[in-house]
Amino acid sequence: MSSKFRILDCTLRDGGYYTNWDFNKDLVEDYCKAMEVLPIEYVEIGYRSISLDGYLGEYFYCPEYVMKRLKSFMPSKKLVIILDEKNIRPEHLNDLLEPCKPYISMVRMAIDPKNFERAIILAKGVKAMGFDVAFNVMYMSNWKENSTFLDLLEGLEDTIDYFYMVDSFGGVLPEDVKEIIELVKSKTNVPLGFHGHDNLEMALINTLTAVENDCVLVDGTITGMGRGAGNLRTELLLTYLNSKNILNFDFTKLSAVVNDFELLKNKYKWGTNLPYMFSGAFSLPQKQVMEWVGMNRYPIGNIVNALNNQKEAIQDN
Amino acid sequence: MSSKFRILDCTLRDGGYYTNWDFNKDLVEDYCKAMEVLPIEYVEIGYRSISLDGYLGEYFYCPEYVMKRLKSFMPSKKLVIILDEKNIRPEHLNDLLEPCKPYISMVRMAIDPKNFERAIILAKGVKAMGFDVAFNVMYMSNWKENSTFLDLLEGLEDTIDYFYMVDSFGGVLPEDVKEIIELVKSKTNVPLGFHGHDNLEMALINTLTAVENDCVLVDGTITGMGRGAGNLRTELLLTYLNSKNILNFDFTKLSAVVNDFELLKNKYKWGTNLPYMFSGAFSLPQKQVMEWVGMNRYPIGNIVNALNNQKEAIQDN
Repeated sequence: MSSKFRILDCTLRDGGYYTNWDFNKDLVEDYCKAMEVLPIEYVEIGYRSISLDGYLGEYFYCPEYVMKRLKSFMPSKKLVIILDEKNIRPEHLNDLLEPCKPYISMVRMAIDPKNFERAIILAKGVKAMGFDVAFNVMYMSNWKENSTFLDLLEGLEDTIDYFYMVDSFGGVLPEDVKEIIELVKSKTNVPLGFHGHDNLEMALINTLTAVENDCVLVDGTITGMGRGAGNLRTELLLTYLNSKNILNFDFTKLSAVVNDFELLKNKYKWGTNLPYMFSGAFSLPQKQVMEWVGMNRYPIGNIVNALNNQKEAIQDN
Repeated sequence: MSSKFRILDCTLRDGGYYTNWDFNKDLVEDYCKAMEVLPIEYVEIGYRSISLDGYLGEYFYCPEYVMKRLKSFMPSKKLVIILDEKNIRPEHLNDLLEPCKPYISMVRMAIDPKNFERAIILAKGVKAMGFDVAFNVMYMSNWKENSTFLDLLEGLEDTIDYFYMVDSFGGVLPEDVKEIIELVKSKTNVPLGFHGHDNLEMALINTLTAVENDCVLVDGTITGMGRGAGNLRTELLLTYLNSKNILNFDFTKLSAVVNDFELLKNKYKWGTNLPYMFSGAFSLPQKQVMEWVGMNRYPIGNIVNALNNQKEAIQDN
């Protein structure tokens, strides 16, 4: 396996779905200091956003003092924030991104393919401000059926630094990863990234498959903390790569941060289970599953039955 | 994917590593009744064994009243018991297996390749008593380096009904599964089985790869309950196969039994974690990891450090 790919850890950003983007200050400090010494290239610390309804915590808005503090713990890392494209318009960019300039290397954008044209306009604005730009494009399991949006990538090599395929439902298998990469490569030369979810326990093998098929940037989170069934566990990827002599690092540092997040996991219980497996296997949205499971009130059977009833009419996010 | 393969569930046998082979009577009844209606061909209910030192529970010995009771709940299933070859000699077979005859269809044998010759002698004795015989041969991740024992399979097609490859360390990847199957196929025509572990979250993809490469029998346990990081989760395999229209079944029944075992999982906490990932990636024995993790006294970092120190001198079981 090539060692040319890089790892992005997005624990605070994707983990925030469980904590409403609030994290204990000491935990964040420990996390950042671990990232600083581990072979992680990019650390995504949260969203930047216009004010949205309802309470959303520190790492959903990442005010300047947060960025400044985190950068001080991770001076050698490239820090990343993400914009949720559906809420952000070009006129918001100045307020949102100007304060990022001293701290943030790359701006990712979470994009529904149906808004792809609008996203490209926004990306040009982000790029003009001097940031690297990554597209995190959702619902890759549907692209084989509907890939026309990919044609819009033509000529955008100078605007988009990374094009991420996001397995939003956690439902793709390695063969699908290969096919979808071929499809995307046939449309663009933008370097590729992969963001996996673990509903079917495919996060690691899909990520390794992506790397073997020329993806240069892949995502993980500590203990897999992340929406629904969660993400590729950064420690699983690192341990595997270490065993193959691809990466070397201090396991004590990795262990300590994993331990911290395992304690949180005992409380929030991310990770796959039958309802998430079901939503992954059938490409059903996990947003609602997450609410049902989180309520701890519904037996697994009721959730699976409700999902079964939903197989026809699908929407997420 | 072919639908010619069959599933064996070994929740009570492999899960027993966490409960010392004791299970609540009602839980077992619910489990058996779920198995009876799910598309599972074989149900392995435990070990049969000579008396060993220390306390070992009901499903380590499977006395006749246990076999009789479980068969009454699962009249349509083929029940299986397993012998740990290292403890069982031909002179034990009569006492151990004669009481099984009314209830048990197949006897599996857990075998260390280094005892392969002795195992064949035992297998002939088991076969002569009228049972189907399955070899569960451990440490498949080492076979590429040492496969001479496989030569002994020649001419045993009438003695061994299934030859199982066991990923004892949970460390193989799909490419390894393919290669090892090719290796075994070059030596024997005995139908193949695969028993995966989940240290690297490869249990499902390895099992699917095994099936695509002609394995006809594959193992799972409900919620993955099993030694160390645990097994392929039966519900994950069934859900995936259902989504591909290969198997149909009642999700309500599956959900109920998964729910029962999730409650046990909250107590015993099987599933992969950093120490199990490490032992899987480096083919280290998970028996000791399991003790360390189970004691709940050692921080993950200490366990990983101890494992690191062990990388050179390896033995399990």
